[in-house]
Amino acid sequence: MTLKKTLFSVIAAGVIVSSAGIAAASEDNITYRKSVMKAVGGHMKSIALIVKGQAGDMKDIASHATAMAGLAKATATAFPEGSGPMDGKTEALLAVWEKPDEFKQVTMAFIAETEKLAEAAKSGDKGAIGAQLGALGKNGCKACHDNFREKN
Amino acid sequence: MTLKKTLFSVIAAGVIVSSAGIAAASEDNITYRKSVMKAVGGHMKSIALIVKGQAGDMKDIASHATAMAGLAKATATAFPEGSGPMDGKTEALLAVWEKPDEFKQVTMAFIAETEKLAEAAKSGDKGAIGAQLGALGKNGCKACHDNFREKN
Repeated sequence: MTLKKTLFSVIAAGVIVSSAGIAAASEDNITYRKSVMKAVGGHMKSIALIVKGQAGDMKDIASHATAMAGLAKATATAFPEGSGPMDGKTEALLAVWEKPDEFKQVTMAFIAETEKLAEAAKSGDKGAIGAQLGALGKNGCKACHDNFREKN
Repeated sequence: MTLKKTLFSVIAAGVIVSSAGIAAASEDNITYRKSVMKAVGGHMKSIALIVKGQAGDMKDIASHATAMAGLAKATATAFPEGSGPMDGKTEALLAVWEKPDEFKQVTMAFIAETEKLAEAAKSGDKGAIGAQLGALGKNGCKACHDNFREKN
């Protein structure tokens, strides 16, 4: 093998390894985001069942709501470049990366509404918790899903 | 309609309404439990990805781990009588209700291991977090799933 060919092989191998690395990182970032959203869904349903008095226990509602606030903060860094629909299997729309200001705005709303929910949950006032759950659903969940997630 | 027949109708209607109420309560209790476990799965995967440096951010690991500890405590009251395999669609085995002492033991281990995880996460020591994640998987998750959940 000539020096030129050897060099080419080494470089080509490097590119392949590097691409595989990027693909793995994309998949991991998407998996992380899905895991965060899975937890969001689990806590959200739990809180709704408790506040309606259908299941669960009021002793756990503050913990569920505090977890929601933590998860909302985690979403602020859960959409890194290279984790979009061109990079892997995700329902996140390109709009997340194309309209960063609008996306940041809904993320901030999500964080603010979950913080208010955590406060309401600590008070134990079912009326306040229920009302804040509605506000979160509208300004946090729906505002983002309507504009930044694929319709199912 | 005779008085006897009327009384019978009233009683029968009462039994039907009451059964429907119990069935709905069973389903809600099972749904709550599944929501809690969904959140457990989401946080567990998130923590694993962060601690391995594959995705997510160390800034969120304490929040994920604290949420796990809260969820573990929620499981202590998430298996009420009447929410078993005879009452609805659940993978929980009858053993949960037939061996309450053994079940309580694994629940207590789940709580203890998640509390240790929350402490490790607050320290930010990746080695300690990884080790404790393993202990939780073995003594918390696996110990219960092996003996109290249907094999998939």
